[in-house]
Amino acid sequence: MSEKAFQDYYPEDLSHCFGCGNQNEKGHRIQSRWDGDESVCTFMPEPYHTSIPGYVYGGLIASLIDCHGTGTAAAAAYRNEGRAMETEPPLRFLTGTLHVEYLRPTPLGVLLELRGVVKEIKGRKVVVSVTLSANGEMCARGEVIAIQMRL
Amino acid sequence: MSEKAFQDYYPEDLSHCFGCGNQNEKGHRIQSRWDGDESVCTFMPEPYHTSIPGYVYGGLIASLIDCHGTGTAAAAAYRNEGRAMETEPPLRFLTGTLHVEYLRPTPLGVLLELRGVVKEIKGRKVVVSVTLSANGEMCARGEVIAIQMRL
Repeated sequence: MSEKAFQDYYPEDLSHCFGCGNQNEKGHRIQSRWDGDESVCTFMPEPYHTSIPGYVYGGLIASLIDCHGTGTAAAAAYRNEGRAMETEPPLRFLTGTLHVEYLRPTPLGVLLELRGVVKEIKGRKVVVSVTLSANGEMCARGEVIAIQMRL
Repeated sequence: MSEKAFQDYYPEDLSHCFGCGNQNEKGHRIQSRWDGDESVCTFMPEPYHTSIPGYVYGGLIASLIDCHGTGTAAAAAYRNEGRAMETEPPLRFLTGTLHVEYLRPTPLGVLLELRGVVKEIKGRKVVVSVTLSANGEMCARGEVIAIQMRL
C-alpha cells in the first residue's frame, strides 16, 4: 500500500468533509489506499457510535461506505487517466446515489475494514462497490455512484 | 402533531442509537412525529457537518433518512396493529437496506425537514420512503427497508 491516502491529495478547500476531509478536526478523517486493484480503509468506531448496545450505528456504516466510495472514485479516475494523484487538475467526486445492505449487526470495539472495487468508469461517473467487514466477516455491502465535480 | 416523538417510546435499552436514541448524549437524538399520514422530523446540522464548504455532509443525510425511516416503521407498525405506542410489546426496527439519492447540494445553516411515507407493511418488513428538504426544496430522497427486531 502507498504511504499517502487518497484523501491527502484532495485540494485543501475540498478537504473539509466530515467523513473524509483531513481538515475537519471533528470528522472521521478516513484514509483510503490502493491494495492492488482494491481500495482499502480501516476505521475504529467510538463507543458512542452505537445502534443497539454492542453494535455499530448504521449511519456510520453508510457514511464510511460513502466516503470510501468517493475517495476510491477519485483515485480510480486518476488511474484511468494514467496520471498520479498529485498532478493537476485535481479530480474530486460527490455522491450521486448511495445504497447499503446491512447483512448482519456490526460489532463495536473492532477495527472495521472497508474494501472498494471499481465497477464502472464512464464520463464523469464512477461506480464503486464497497464491503465492510469486522473480524473478517462481511457485515455490510454497498454501492456508490460517484459524480466528478466541475472544479 | 403529537407531543411525544416516536423515539420516546423506544425501550430504554434500545434507546442508545447515535442517530435516534434519546439516551445517547453524543448523538443526533432525532425526533419524529406523525403529521397526518406522513412522518416528519426536523434537524439542524452543526457547522462541522460539512461536505464541501457551505453544504451538508452526505453521510449525515443518509443517517437522518435511516433513523427517521426506522422510527417511522415502528410507528407505522403500531398503527397497523391498531394500538398506541406505549402499549406492550414494544416494536423496534433495524435497517435492512438504505438507498439515498442526492438530488442537489444541501445548504448548511438551514433547518432540514425530513418527511416519511409508508410504502408497504408486510410481516416484519416495513418500507418507508423519505424526502429531505432545505428551504422548501427537496435535496435528497431515500428509501429504507426496515426489519422488525425479535425482542
